[in-house]
Amino acid sequence: MKLLKDKIHQDGLVLSGNVLKVDSFLNHQVDPFLMKKIGEEFVRRFSDEKITKILTLESSGISPALMAALELEIPLVFARKRKSLTLTDDLYTAEVYSYTKQETNTISVSKNWIHSGEKVLIIDDFLANGQAALGLCSIVQQAEAEIVGIGIVIEKSFQQGRNLLMDQNLRVESLARIKSLENGKVQFIEEENNER
Amino acid sequence: MKLLKDKIHQDGLVLSGNVLKVDSFLNHQVDPFLMKKIGEEFVRRFSDEKITKILTLESSGISPALMAALELEIPLVFARKRKSLTLTDDLYTAEVYSYTKQETNTISVSKNWIHSGEKVLIIDDFLANGQAALGLCSIVQQAEAEIVGIGIVIEKSFQQGRNLLMDQNLRVESLARIKSLENGKVQFIEEENNER
Repeated sequence: MKLLKDKIHQDGLVLSGNVLKVDSFLNHQVDPFLMKKIGEEFVRRFSDEKITKILTLESSGISPALMAALELEIPLVFARKRKSLTLTDDLYTAEVYSYTKQETNTISVSKNWIHSGEKVLIIDDFLANGQAALGLCSIVQQAEAEIVGIGIVIEKSFQQGRNLLMDQNLRVESLARIKSLENGKVQFIEEENNER
Repeated sequence: MKLLKDKIHQDGLVLSGNVLKVDSFLNHQVDPFLMKKIGEEFVRRFSDEKITKILTLESSGISPALMAALELEIPLVFARKRKSLTLTDDLYTAEVYSYTKQETNTISVSKNWIHSGEKVLIIDDFLANGQAALGLCSIVQQAEAEIVGIGIVIEKSFQQGRNLLMDQNLRVESLARIKSLENGKVQFIEEENNER
């Protein structure tokens, strides 16, 4: 997605340890117009699917996911990150390990909001090691709903996340695929066919 | 706001301890169309002001705040809830006590995203005891920016939050003002003049 890649080139900061900081438009300050365009692009890419619900993870996933949900006129559900495990009876939960923070979080979704037979599009801001996406997939599977696919705003393609999802025969659509952050420079994988 | 009040009557759950659960359309599952209408209503109510930025608190504030920011074509910033205090040099922080959870959280905003002289509209999902709103106000004040006002989706008017904000001469616009949750029944304060 050209608009997104241009924005990453313009405002993204490459920090040490292969960290890309996009706090100026996605993870802390948010550009609503860009989020709207991102939502529309997810809808375009999955236009061959009948989606009934969008699932994301708080907090940075909410903005792009909300815009896709608005475009599709379907509800959004955001999974919660929670430390303690009280009242788990009515929750679907999954353990998500963060390589960045070196800690495991339990994410959860109330059983009220994903139902058997639903067709769920998972949306998240980043795909790196894939642990968050796999956790969200587990929640959809626990609900006996169908995973239509995974829509990712920024994919760090040099990490293992995409392959882990493809291994499960899941469809992954990433709007910006980063080949390398070496030498402080963002290099994208070129994808002429699907570029808008 | 009639659409919102109807939704609360239809889908809100009153739990013990004056808790109103709106997980079906605001705090966990999110209704994007309603969020769009809420965003538009905030913009209408503050249409006499020139706003340069919207500030909210993760996670439930993000959806209504994003829609207001989209309508105004300005950036949104969401404050983060954080437990630990590392690298505070580049952060504005405030302590926020939660009466519900009986714990104090430090909320923070990077100094990069609120600047001196900006005109900031604060938006949050709930106003009860006002501690989160006061924390967000403190952050705007630390940045030497101006608080245009506080836009609240659901106000529990029988708690002290609104009065604490009014005591500081702050403008509060709440889209649904709840007079009472007694006997499991939601009663709104009637506001004929400003109702849409």
